[in-house]
Amino acid sequence: MYTFDELKNTFSDYVETKMLLDEPKGLYEPVNYLMGLSGKRIRPVACLMTANLFSDDIKKALPIAYSIEMFHNFTLMHDDIMDDADLRRGNQTVHVKYNQNTGILSGDLMMIMSYNHLISNCYDLELKDAILKLFTSTAIEVCEGQQYDMDFETRDDVSLDEYLQMIKLKTAVLLAASLKAGMVIGKASEADSQNMYDFGLNIGLAFQIQDDLLDTYGDVNIFGKKIGGDIVQNKKTYLYLKALELANAEDREKLKLLYNSNSDDPETKVKEVKDIFDKLDVQTAAYNLINDLSKKAFNHFNSLSMPKKKLEEIKRLAETLLKRKF
Amino acid sequence: MYTFDELKNTFSDYVETKMLLDEPKGLYEPVNYLMGLSGKRIRPVACLMTANLFSDDIKKALPIAYSIEMFHNFTLMHDDIMDDADLRRGNQTVHVKYNQNTGILSGDLMMIMSYNHLISNCYDLELKDAILKLFTSTAIEVCEGQQYDMDFETRDDVSLDEYLQMIKLKTAVLLAASLKAGMVIGKASEADSQNMYDFGLNIGLAFQIQDDLLDTYGDVNIFGKKIGGDIVQNKKTYLYLKALELANAEDREKLKLLYNSNSDDPETKVKEVKDIFDKLDVQTAAYNLINDLSKKAFNHFNSLSMPKKKLEEIKRLAETLLKRKF
Repeated sequence: MYTFDELKNTFSDYVETKMLLDEPKGLYEPVNYLMGLSGKRIRPVACLMTANLFSDDIKKALPIAYSIEMFHNFTLMHDDIMDDADLRRGNQTVHVKYNQNTGILSGDLMMIMSYNHLISNCYDLELKDAILKLFTSTAIEVCEGQQYDMDFETRDDVSLDEYLQMIKLKTAVLLAASLKAGMVIGKASEADSQNMYDFGLNIGLAFQIQDDLLDTYGDVNIFGKKIGGDIVQNKKTYLYLKALELANAEDREKLKLLYNSNSDDPETKVKEVKDIFDKLDVQTAAYNLINDLSKKAFNHFNSLSMPKKKLEEIKRLAETLLKRKF
Repeated sequence: MYTFDELKNTFSDYVETKMLLDEPKGLYEPVNYLMGLSGKRIRPVACLMTANLFSDDIKKALPIAYSIEMFHNFTLMHDDIMDDADLRRGNQTVHVKYNQNTGILSGDLMMIMSYNHLISNCYDLELKDAILKLFTSTAIEVCEGQQYDMDFETRDDVSLDEYLQMIKLKTAVLLAASLKAGMVIGKASEADSQNMYDFGLNIGLAFQIQDDLLDTYGDVNIFGKKIGGDIVQNKKTYLYLKALELANAEDREKLKLLYNSNSDDPETKVKEVKDIFDKLDVQTAAYNLINDLSKKAFNHFNSLSMPKKKLEEIKRLAETLLKRKF
């Protein structure tokens, strides 16, 4: 079995050979730029890892992993426009570095390229069809998740269930589908494929809740982003929605008021919101949810029919994502 | 053989049954809105027409025609953002009626939906693969065409050849691919498929040159748009580029100057540009090019192996597009 790092290197080499050198440059260069910023590449490597469960020859899985990464980067390019984000992976976003129209059109191209790569480089028609179906239904869900996320910005009555559904669609399904794709390549049983999918789904959910938690309670040196950013931006995270659920009428009003303001003094705002979070101990609630989701994930994981030894590297990936041992 | 109108009605009925009623509404409604504005539906009907050459049962072709129309509408939704257009088919564009983020995300969904419809509703794997390849290579070309079009806005040295290449990519290839798709469905020979494609390509080019011509020399009552719009917007059309080619140094400078200005008096500007066009008789040059392209188109058309009687309706479509008899 290959390690995460070995597979990441193999994948990076593959991406290098697939740089888009066509004309017009204004269309293709931004794609190479964003793909070149590389990122953690968890999704394509997750696909290679599960494919590796069935064969040491992962060549067949590389184009599919590539399509997944290209699709993920397409969503980033367009999300960054919609979210008006300046930075991506510590560098300028495409619509800032170039311009908005470039961000739209090169993003469109990436979406098409992710299909193109799959369609042109997968030679088993049955496999291709199965992957295309998985890929397309996932892509639709990711769009739905992004729409819910935008809808929530202006809604005042978002429930915790709706929030969990949103992060499931926006982020968890793509990790789940990436893990499942390798199972489909390996011709795993339906039960194993589904268990691997559900494992990924719950890990993805737990990861997102943890991300919410770290944004408010993390160590800036480890988290790599400024602490409290979600609060400053009035983001309706798990912590906020859980706090609204647990708060008495007075605290609920105070929290809503704080979230409806664009404070000139963000530090005080973060402190005041955090005081309410602390009082209601939403941090513990978040830990409990992460635990529950991890447990669910590992119930599915432990139902997989393959030898535990083979699964070690995938387990390690989950541990890395959630920064803890299982 | 079915007529254009019969096929358009069949197609419209099909679209009606495929309205997207899923949640979130903010994502799906704009898709229904734009698809509901309907338009001429030349591309999907072109696909049905060529499929109809081989069978009266066009059911197999409907999902593919639908995917083509969905793809075309996706390009419109995003192009309208990039071109800052307020109106589409006489109604508000999606990003104006809703907002820009909706235009981006619902457009993304349409792109994915066009694949989804094809992938989910085409049951012959070989056919599906052939159509996916045709569809995807065409989609890439359409993106390239849009990028060239945007690049040309800020370039001062666009050649006529480059312009023809741009309109080929931006508009002609999709008509060509639509006609070819029906041939692929009907399992036509490679030669027939290619001739039909090249017929569509040249008709598409001729149509675009004619559109340039009508924008400056058309009858407002027939053309349906204000005459001279391209000149007011400094669009580098065939007429403008041909005029630059034919003009002496003095007229060339004058024309460039007029095109670099945002005149407060558009009527005078249109008149002055038109005077140069008239002096150089670019109108005749455009007619000659349309003739050449039509001749090329019909050389390919006449090489098709099927009986002329069967091809009459397709010939009529070309005549309608170019508003003349062949």
